[in-house]
Amino acid sequence: MLAPGHRLALRCGRVWLLLLLLLGCGLAPEAGSLLNCPPRCLCASNIISCSKLGLGIIPTQLPRFTAILDLSHNNLTRLRADWTPARLPHLHSLLLSHNALGFISTEAFCHVPHLRYLDLSSNSLKALEEFLFSQLQELEVLLLYNNQIAQMDRSAFDDMARLQKLYLSQNQISRFPVELVKDRAKLPDLALLDLSANKIKGLPVMALKGLPAWMKNGLYLHSNPLNCDCGLYELFAHWHARQLSSVVDFREELVCSLPQAKRSVSVFTLNRHDSLNCSEFKEHMLEAYLGDTVTIDCDTKVRGATTREWVTPTNGRFPEESTNSTMTVLGNGSLQIRPIRVEDMGTYTCYAVSQAFNETLYVDVMVHNFTQHGPHDTLNTAYTTLVGCILSVILVLIYLYLTPCRCCCRSNEKLAAPPEDSINSSMLSTTPNHNPEAGGRKGSLSHLAASGPMQGQNGKVKPHSTPEQAARRAQKAHRKVSDPDSVSSVFSDTPIVV
Amino acid sequence: MLAPGHRLALRCGRVWLLLLLLLGCGLAPEAGSLLNCPPRCLCASNIISCSKLGLGIIPTQLPRFTAILDLSHNNLTRLRADWTPARLPHLHSLLLSHNALGFISTEAFCHVPHLRYLDLSSNSLKALEEFLFSQLQELEVLLLYNNQIAQMDRSAFDDMARLQKLYLSQNQISRFPVELVKDRAKLPDLALLDLSANKIKGLPVMALKGLPAWMKNGLYLHSNPLNCDCGLYELFAHWHARQLSSVVDFREELVCSLPQAKRSVSVFTLNRHDSLNCSEFKEHMLEAYLGDTVTIDCDTKVRGATTREWVTPTNGRFPEESTNSTMTVLGNGSLQIRPIRVEDMGTYTCYAVSQAFNETLYVDVMVHNFTQHGPHDTLNTAYTTLVGCILSVILVLIYLYLTPCRCCCRSNEKLAAPPEDSINSSMLSTTPNHNPEAGGRKGSLSHLAASGPMQGQNGKVKPHSTPEQAARRAQKAHRKVSDPDSVSSVFSDTPIVV
Repeated sequence: MLAPGHRLALRCGRVWLLLLLLLGCGLAPEAGSLLNCPPRCLCASNIISCSKLGLGIIPTQLPRFTAILDLSHNNLTRLRADWTPARLPHLHSLLLSHNALGFISTEAFCHVPHLRYLDLSSNSLKALEEFLFSQLQELEVLLLYNNQIAQMDRSAFDDMARLQKLYLSQNQISRFPVELVKDRAKLPDLALLDLSANKIKGLPVMALKGLPAWMKNGLYLHSNPLNCDCGLYELFAHWHARQLSSVVDFREELVCSLPQAKRSVSVFTLNRHDSLNCSEFKEHMLEAYLGDTVTIDCDTKVRGATTREWVTPTNGRFPEESTNSTMTVLGNGSLQIRPIRVEDMGTYTCYAVSQAFNETLYVDVMVHNFTQHGPHDTLNTAYTTLVGCILSVILVLIYLYLTPCRCCCRSNEKLAAPPEDSINSSMLSTTPNHNPEAGGRKGSLSHLAASGPMQGQNGKVKPHSTPEQAARRAQKAHRKVSDPDSVSSVFSDTPIVV
Repeated sequence: MLAPGHRLALRCGRVWLLLLLLLGCGLAPEAGSLLNCPPRCLCASNIISCSKLGLGIIPTQLPRFTAILDLSHNNLTRLRADWTPARLPHLHSLLLSHNALGFISTEAFCHVPHLRYLDLSSNSLKALEEFLFSQLQELEVLLLYNNQIAQMDRSAFDDMARLQKLYLSQNQISRFPVELVKDRAKLPDLALLDLSANKIKGLPVMALKGLPAWMKNGLYLHSNPLNCDCGLYELFAHWHARQLSSVVDFREELVCSLPQAKRSVSVFTLNRHDSLNCSEFKEHMLEAYLGDTVTIDCDTKVRGATTREWVTPTNGRFPEESTNSTMTVLGNGSLQIRPIRVEDMGTYTCYAVSQAFNETLYVDVMVHNFTQHGPHDTLNTAYTTLVGCILSVILVLIYLYLTPCRCCCRSNEKLAAPPEDSINSSMLSTTPNHNPEAGGRKGSLSHLAASGPMQGQNGKVKPHSTPEQAARRAQKAHRKVSDPDSVSSVFSDTPIVV
């Protein structure tokens, strides 16, 4: 399969060949023709107006300097590859609305490479073929509304890097052309996509949610037989909260079909329908964790803000006060906070100013009072606490069983007492010294020892200690080892996080 | 008389009052009307198309978000102040062509302040009143061709700071509206003014000559009953030499009426008509004098070149090689030479590059081998040279006649020789010491002296010097005195320019 570039070159090459043949046959227009203006048309310097003349074919002898060509309200049925035998390098506007165009050659635009405005509205187009408009790499506005377009090849609008407005309203389109908005590199300037009054039932809600506000502001989807669901409600409720034109201007026309009722209802009333049970829409706030790097977008409705100014919850203004601060305004106008603190929580205001509009945007930021559960942090706390506990237990056991037996005499209880005290007050203890049960623990180990094989070494018997008490203490000690919150062992080097 | 600003405010104020009255009477459109689209019109999001519907009045319930309003091919006769009761802040294109508009209220555009494109072509307008379009301060394109405009108030287009294209073709205009091009501050962006096919007989040739090339490139004047004269021929011959579109594209239609013959001839053949005797057009070159500050404009045909690069006759490239040079490229792309020297003479090439076009421009520069006849310069050179000469002569005479006679003896030639040498090698000499004739000049003064009354004092006779030689030398000395190039006298404080 050929790459698009080669494909186009091949196509336009064929048209050149045709032209050469025509020139050879003497059919090409003479250079410097005395009659610059086609018959019956109206000409004003670089404007050629052949509107409403009942034309069935396009005049061929168009002057090379034509900038605007108006062929609207005629009877044209086909836009062939050779509709203009000569190249029209200055043509920027081609008006073909209100004709009967049912066919457009994929080579039709080879000779008008600098077209910026193409009006094909109110015709009879049924399908848009692959790479149909791909030669129009400078086109900014394409009007295709009020046709019968049912099929639209995914590559029909490829390589239209400057396309800003695409009107596809009042056609038979049943699939949302997600390729037009998803891959932003494809149509980077597209700010208006009118898909209203078509046959679209489902929307790629997640893909639409991720679009910048200036794109959603011009994404018209009203008067489509959409299927109702809570995702749809949330999507449009958010757009309405942002006062986006595509929703505010056509609020009444934004309807959907309820699955059971088989009737259309306003998208904005879906939260009041029992069958769907959508929860009331609330604007999400930006959540962050202590120490995070947070970027707050100034997601304006209209693109091209020249200046963006931020006001923080504490009335700090950026980028004016950018010295010694954790906040900086990035190149794209976003505010970056690095690292975020609890006191940074609140409502941030972005004032976007441009030639055409001024916009004020509020963003609520909530900061959690702890760091995010990143894998590194968790490991640090758990690991060091565990290691500390295990070491404590091992050392206690070493102390109990492997210390040289300095007092084998069972009767000398006084000599045995200090080591027992040292367990309780030792740095190795896993329980705090202020444990209220510390006094009652005296001789607990010896009691356990007395009932097992350890009895012969360093054990002692406390007569008031019952087996139940001993078992409870052992259970408690086990629980404390597994609970990092209660551990204040000196073996842990992790600061305790409040 | 009120200032234009106040006048407009007052006008638009009256419209507001009318609107308030309408609102009071309940005639204003309801906010959030269910029917966004006017009856019978075709609507695609922000486009309202009511073309070719036989409308006699403009629909009043136009939605507030309307961006493009197409009312072409209808039967509208009047554009009244209240044609849109509500403000249309988003309207950028208003199409009213092919109607029968004979009247436009001076308050008609109060509610469409952001209009950028207004098509009033093919109507029945007869006059443009004062400040008619002055509310349209953002208008870029105004189409008024194919009307019957005979009267055009000088202030009709005032305050249209962003107007780029004004089509007035095919009307009854008999006066060239010089106010549109002369005061560049009035319409600073005007790049296309189509006055073709009108009734203009005379042109302000001098004013037109001074316009930048990008403005002349879009100044269409063909198909007018111009009166032939040599000024007209020179003007258009120069435009043709520059290959300006307004002349090249309509070469055949650029005709004028010969006063006697009462017939139209091509403007470009005027130099071949005996009745006018115009001299053949030759492109003027830029003339400069030694030491002048010369600015060479890169006067491109299309405005908006992003980069301008200059190549000098000696293949120096600017602004790359701007170190230690007399040449600098100014902010507007012009090349400044300060001071200009004879070796700077030649053809300068400007390469202008922009998004839409690349243009190469050649400017021939001739440098005269002397400074311009400014009073100061002339005085300096002539005055100091003259004073030097007179002083030399006086000192020689003093030496000859007034020195105390230390050696009256004529036979002692050896004593007399050094003073004679000193004349030739003296600082007072008006001829350079390296003069190849210096050897032969020995005794020239004495020879002259020998033939005159000086013979008795300090003179000596060189036997090989003939009277012819002496006369030639005297003549040469005289020429050198008057030629500043050869003067190296220390009395001159002018630097020697090679």
